[in-house]
Amino acid sequence: MTATTALPRPDLAAYNAARARQSVLTKPAGSLGVLEDVACRFAAWQGKTCPDAIKPAITVFAGDHGVTEEGVSAYPSVVTGEMVKNFVAGGAAICVLARALEARLEVVDAGVMSPLDGLPIVHARVRAASANLAVGPAMSLSEAQAALDVGRDAARRAVTAGANLLIAGDMGIGNTTPSAALICHLAGQDADAIVGRGTGIDDATLINKRRVVKQALARLAGQQQDGLTVLAELGGLEIAAMAGFYLEGAQLGVPSLVDGFIASAAALAARAIEPTVADWLLASHRSEETGHALALQALGLTPLVALGMRLGEGSGAAASVPLLQLAIRLHNEMATFAEAGVTEKA
Amino acid sequence: MTATTALPRPDLAAYNAARARQSVLTKPAGSLGVLEDVACRFAAWQGKTCPDAIKPAITVFAGDHGVTEEGVSAYPSVVTGEMVKNFVAGGAAICVLARALEARLEVVDAGVMSPLDGLPIVHARVRAASANLAVGPAMSLSEAQAALDVGRDAARRAVTAGANLLIAGDMGIGNTTPSAALICHLAGQDADAIVGRGTGIDDATLINKRRVVKQALARLAGQQQDGLTVLAELGGLEIAAMAGFYLEGAQLGVPSLVDGFIASAAALAARAIEPTVADWLLASHRSEETGHALALQALGLTPLVALGMRLGEGSGAAASVPLLQLAIRLHNEMATFAEAGVTEKA
Repeated sequence: MTATTALPRPDLAAYNAARARQSVLTKPAGSLGVLEDVACRFAAWQGKTCPDAIKPAITVFAGDHGVTEEGVSAYPSVVTGEMVKNFVAGGAAICVLARALEARLEVVDAGVMSPLDGLPIVHARVRAASANLAVGPAMSLSEAQAALDVGRDAARRAVTAGANLLIAGDMGIGNTTPSAALICHLAGQDADAIVGRGTGIDDATLINKRRVVKQALARLAGQQQDGLTVLAELGGLEIAAMAGFYLEGAQLGVPSLVDGFIASAAALAARAIEPTVADWLLASHRSEETGHALALQALGLTPLVALGMRLGEGSGAAASVPLLQLAIRLHNEMATFAEAGVTEKA
Repeated sequence: MTATTALPRPDLAAYNAARARQSVLTKPAGSLGVLEDVACRFAAWQGKTCPDAIKPAITVFAGDHGVTEEGVSAYPSVVTGEMVKNFVAGGAAICVLARALEARLEVVDAGVMSPLDGLPIVHARVRAASANLAVGPAMSLSEAQAALDVGRDAARRAVTAGANLLIAGDMGIGNTTPSAALICHLAGQDADAIVGRGTGIDDATLINKRRVVKQALARLAGQQQDGLTVLAELGGLEIAAMAGFYLEGAQLGVPSLVDGFIASAAALAARAIEPTVADWLLASHRSEETGHALALQALGLTPLVALGMRLGEGSGAAASVPLLQLAIRLHNEMATFAEAGVTEKA
């Protein structure tokens, strides 16, 4: 596994200066709620009392999952590749959101099953779908490491292109199953609390999906493994890439906005590899997927919004970006009581 | 009181066509959560399966409150006029948000106490501050009617200028007191459940504020008054104007995005005057102010977000507009399963 040098720390002095600024803006103290917190966190990340506007970059990592042979998903695996084509054509939700945000959008094949030759995406397939995690490790350790590096490379490209906020999205039929397994193992939760309906499975499939997750978890029960091993046992190729993306972002001093269930599983895996990565993570939305709230809680993150979304692709994170932009503009542009000649609270 | 002709109804056929479109877009059914509902409601309001992008207009209504002589606010009344000057100078939160949204912003003096002569605002002062509602009606019936008309005129100007979404904001030191009184009376709630800390009052002031609201409510106890009378007894000049703004928007077939506590009190007053106005209202945020959730519930509205905001000025509504824009873009621009050649759910 890549040796991570200690990650940089957010700038506490800039954070405190931003808090002081918030307290003299022309509004009752605290009345902008979480928008105040958001602005101060970006101040800390950028090392500036008044942070720059957000330039987001979205990378969607695609991968397939051997565990689909257990019948855990409402859609066939072929949809992963079909959706990659939809990303290229601009018709998927994340494409619309990226256009609206004027965000860089990159699609990375980390492990899709279908042929995608010739498509204008990043071809970084580690293997064509993971193995079935119900019966053995989803990947070898070297495959998991290679997938992490796929994500690290993507983060470097995004930052080189000028991004100061990273969003990882996922596309992978079956990927709520490995994500649930990772969350259970890394957050110490039971499958019944975490396994949900994904793209919309029925009751019988849900019972089967729980069985599959429990079976996988049983292999690791009572053992203390490092993060890479857990990722190899229970993860997926696009999930490992997302974890690498978060780690490299933090290494470069650039925060990531965490999307939903899959992204939170990847963030937990990243934290298992390097605990201080969480200093560089901001939660966006609380997904409707069962167990996401518990995953965020385990990460120590509070979601900005809860819009009933459960789409993946980075869509919940992307939808939250305008709130972050507004938070920063309010912080930077509002007048102080002194500037405006407004009487302060008695 | 102005005779309202029956309000127009949202277009049910357009709503159903929008719902049908949502069901064939390339995503699991329902996975965009409330963003799907929002897009369909705009389809109904605009009478178009694929609604136009939102052109919001924000009108901030300012007024002072005689009830401040009871010591119910953390700030002195002079701040209302000072903040109007801050609106003109562009330093208030709503100014920053309006610039970010490229929204028309108009400031209307409906009843400020301080002289505001010469400022580039709409001078429509009905009277310099309401009377103290603790001891008698806040306004006469004709003053309440005049204030409603101030809001109606503002809505017409906004729609004439091209707005297809209206946002009413408030500025008025002391205005959580009349708003709490209106919500209690119109939603059948007790003062203890509704009266909150406004801009940030201490425990002793909160107890006093509850007493004031109860005293005002006692005057109307057991009586059945029409909406205008309730507004005159318990309201305020900017609150009445906001109610008129919502009513005229609905009359013109243009929806309003309801802000926080004050705006919800105004919306309840508007509904007491014309019940079907609620068909043209969309909730934006749930304010931190105690009792706002109950006010929204009484209106039958579900907030999009809860950001811990409690600033007024229309700020929570304005902050929610980008989510509405994204909802509409997703609805209009996503590919269908057929267009993208993506396999549908088994």
